[in-house]
Amino acid sequence: MEFLVSIKILPLPREENSAKLYAAEALRARELADMGVIQRLWRVPGQKANWGLWEAQDATTLHKAISSLPLYPYMEVIVHPLAKHPSDPLKAPQSR
Amino acid sequence: MEFLVSIKILPLPREENSAKLYAAEALRARELADMGVIQRLWRVPGQKANWGLWEAQDATTLHKAISSLPLYPYMEVIVHPLAKHPSDPLKAPQSR
Amino acid sequence: MEFLVSIKILPLPREENSAKLYAAEALRARELADMGVIQRLWRVPGQKANWGLWEAQDATTLHKAISSLPLYPYMEVIVHPLAKHPSDPLKAPQSR
Amino acid sequence: MEFLVSIKILPLPREENSAKLYAAEALRARELADMGVIQRLWRVPGQKANWGLWEAQDATTLHKAISSLPLYPYMEVIVHPLAKHPSDPLKAPQSR
Amino acid sequence: MEFLVSIKILPLPREENSAKLYAAEALRARELADMGVIQRLWRVPGQKANWGLWEAQDATTLHKAISSLPLYPYMEVIVHPLAKHPSDPLKAPQSR
Amino acid sequence: MEFLVSIKILPLPREENSAKLYAAEALRARELADMGVIQRLWRVPGQKANWGLWEAQDATTLHKAISSLPLYPYMEVIVHPLAKHPSDPLKAPQSR
Amino acid sequence: MEFLVSIKILPLPREENSAKLYAAEALRARELADMGVIQRLWRVPGQKANWGLWEAQDATTLHKAISSLPLYPYMEVIVHPLAKHPSDPLKAPQSR
Amino acid sequence: MEFLVSIKILPLPREENSAKLYAAEALRARELADMGVIQRLWRVPGQKANWGLWEAQDATTLHKAISSLPLYPYMEVIVHPLAKHPSDPLKAPQSR
Amino acid sequence: MEFLVSIKILPLPREENSAKLYAAEALRARELADMGVIQRLWRVPGQKANWGLWEAQDATTLHKAISSLPLYPYMEVIVHPLAKHPSDPLKAPQSR
Amino acid sequence: MEFLVSIKILPLPREENSAKLYAAEALRARELADMGVIQRLWRVPGQKANWGLWEAQDATTLHKAISSLPLYPYMEVIVHPLAKHPSDPLKAPQSR
Repeated sequence: MEFLVSIKILPLPREENSAKLYAAEALRARELADMGVIQRLWRVPGQKANWGLWEAQDATTLHKAISSLPLYPYMEVIVHPLAKHPSDPLKAPQSR
Repeated sequence: MEFLVSIKILPLPREENSAKLYAAEALRARELADMGVIQRLWRVPGQKANWGLWEAQDATTLHKAISSLPLYPYMEVIVHPLAKHPSDPLKAPQSR
Repeated sequence: MEFLVSIKILPLPREENSAKLYAAEALRARELADMGVIQRLWRVPGQKANWGLWEAQDATTLHKAISSLPLYPYMEVIVHPLAKHPSDPLKAPQSR
Repeated sequence: MEFLVSIKILPLPREENSAKLYAAEALRARELADMGVIQRLWRVPGQKANWGLWEAQDATTLHKAISSLPLYPYMEVIVHPLAKHPSDPLKAPQSR
Repeated sequence: MEFLVSIKILPLPREENSAKLYAAEALRARELADMGVIQRLWRVPGQKANWGLWEAQDATTLHKAISSLPLYPYMEVIVHPLAKHPSDPLKAPQSR
Repeated sequence: MEFLVSIKILPLPREENSAKLYAAEALRARELADMGVIQRLWRVPGQKANWGLWEAQDATTLHKAISSLPLYPYMEVIVHPLAKHPSDPLKAPQSR
Repeated sequence: MEFLVSIKILPLPREENSAKLYAAEALRARELADMGVIQRLWRVPGQKANWGLWEAQDATTLHKAISSLPLYPYMEVIVHPLAKHPSDPLKAPQSR
Repeated sequence: MEFLVSIKILPLPREENSAKLYAAEALRARELADMGVIQRLWRVPGQKANWGLWEAQDATTLHKAISSLPLYPYMEVIVHPLAKHPSDPLKAPQSR
Repeated sequence: MEFLVSIKILPLPREENSAKLYAAEALRARELADMGVIQRLWRVPGQKANWGLWEAQDATTLHKAISSLPLYPYMEVIVHPLAKHPSDPLKAPQSR
Repeated sequence: MEFLVSIKILPLPREENSAKLYAAEALRARELADMGVIQRLWRVPGQKANWGLWEAQDATTLHKAISSLPLYPYMEVIVHPLAKHPSDPLKAPQSR
């Protein structure tokens, strides 16, 4: 099942090592992409925020994936469940 | 440039031939998909609404594409411009 | 997967046979309950609206169930996907 | 009487012992579940938040139960009162 | 249990006999007041709307009372459940 | 003139003596109740917030009363002016 | 007591004589101005809406004045109660 | 003085001659542009709406200009007043 | 040109000398009143906020006046431009 | 492609050298203006906020420009994509 996920990164508290955290975040995002969980990721222009197309068995699995991101404690996340549309050009995400 | 487009279909006025209009809509959506303008389309569950991933040169070209849909007079549309994200699994939409 | 679904019934157009439509709605709701799709249903006090606990394979299946309701053309629906919580008293909806 | 309760956990201040507080929270949630006050609990995917189905005599009793949770000082809570719906598959929560 | 109820009256459709409906509404409001269900009623200045203090066993009973009002089909209603406050000057509504 | 007042208590800064402040608050609330300024007070279930029915000559007098509360610096307050409703069961607050 | 009143005029139904209604509205507004009830009136630029400074004994009297306007059935009105400010250049509206 | 004006065109009632009205609108927009009142105009992609940069002596003059547009009865307009910014690349609109 | 200005004062940081700042604020408000820039000022009851009627050449001059207030760094300000209304009892603010 | 960009500057943390940061901001804004990226800039009266007309190849290029501003970590930014309007007085921004 696909989900459209909006993630906004809040300001990090001063005691956090920001560079290290962002590096770990990019690494974990890459792992989730390799696992097929993160399908696409776009930056919201002008914001520390992104839109993502995620693929997960259900909301429980999705939550585990999102909360495995190192920046998760500093995120505001909204999850939009997606249903298949008869006019979708791609029949299934696996087929890509 | 990619755009995330949210489209909500309003109730059609009684004098419209609803079946005919929806058929024309599906046809035009297919054309836009074949042209690579509509990349993905998902239904919002429980709603006469969809999320779409659109590809267009700029907002002017995008507007022409959206307003070419037969249901356009009965749509509420919100366009979110998308910037590339360094962790996006897909490097470019053309490469698919 | 469970979903929390908020449904608001809009005023019916005058040409609709309201009593007949509501009877058909109750019938279909009962069928969905018997199939285990609608698990619980509550009325929002003072409103022509309800909260429902729905169970479906994914958002696509849920959409089919919701849009099979006779009053669907006159509904405003919001779907909240639900993930399992470690402190949930019920381990799984099937176990009831 | 049943209530649908939305709880969002705010970031804890640094001086709080977060692990200890969450353990106490789980314990108290279990007690409220054993007493039949918390009937169901779901996590909002991607958020430090939950939806709960609560059962209490009235709003005063419900407030006592909610405010007995150790994380209560760091919660944003919205209470939705629920009325019985004629199409509810479960006749009464006690009958489960 | 007490409830704070906000009621907004929408414009009546032309085919309704407005004077008759409002007279019936006042009559039913008086009955609900005599039964102790409506405790207080205030007009929102400048609006066809009111705030009311209602007393009912639970949300189900409250819904029956509100939906017994002749103008109910043309109302937007929001129900706020009320818990007792230790500094409330009135110990119980019955004691008045 | 009556006012419906919604008060939300924000988190106190750490340097405040919370127990002392709340005790002073309860004392002042009692004084305002004895003066007939606070007529009723209800807790919003699940929140550090209350709804109150206040009686004051005008908005200036009301502001003086509200801002005399010890917790006033930590309050978010919304004042709803109330007009008399012809169906109000109580003719005048003084008559109680 | 002074009130800041925001009034938005909704589209009139076709059967209303719009010119006649607006003329009657201007007449009644002038009467309320002569009585000192309407102190100031400003148009919201680009909108069929106005801000007004009204003077009335209390919310009940204000409601009578507002609802005496011929366009009242087609208005959306929000009333903001005003308290005196120590830095107000005008000591009292009567003194003008 | 410059104003940023957001205009949304509502659906026209059936009895209006839509083509004629839009032609008159374009004509009047051209006149306002020639007079220097409308400086720039952009379409909101996907919407029957525009953003405009307007120049007028004050809000009263601006209102006269906006309400002179033939589609004015079917517009939702929001006016944002603009102040000069020290880093504005253009010193004054006249200098263009 | 007249403006309706809504100002909300945020909590001051602890290092600010609050009494001194408020005294300077009152002084500057008086100066702006003497210059005819602040015409009227009202307190929002129950809030550290005010509504003001301001008179300025344009938005740039208004911004200079507002930002000259000592509390400006701690203000949330919303400016509503005002156009003349044909039924305004006062012909011009200067005539007072 | 043109974008309408709304930027709000949040309060700077105490450890930042505010004067230095604002000077660097003005310098970078001037560079972006010289490059034709910032076309126009207006201050929102009464706020530490601005509206800007930006020109960029696409949302990715725009994001790079906005995030190159020294105050970017303390900004709330909303980007509105703009399409060409047939009644726009200026045919193209380059022609100015």
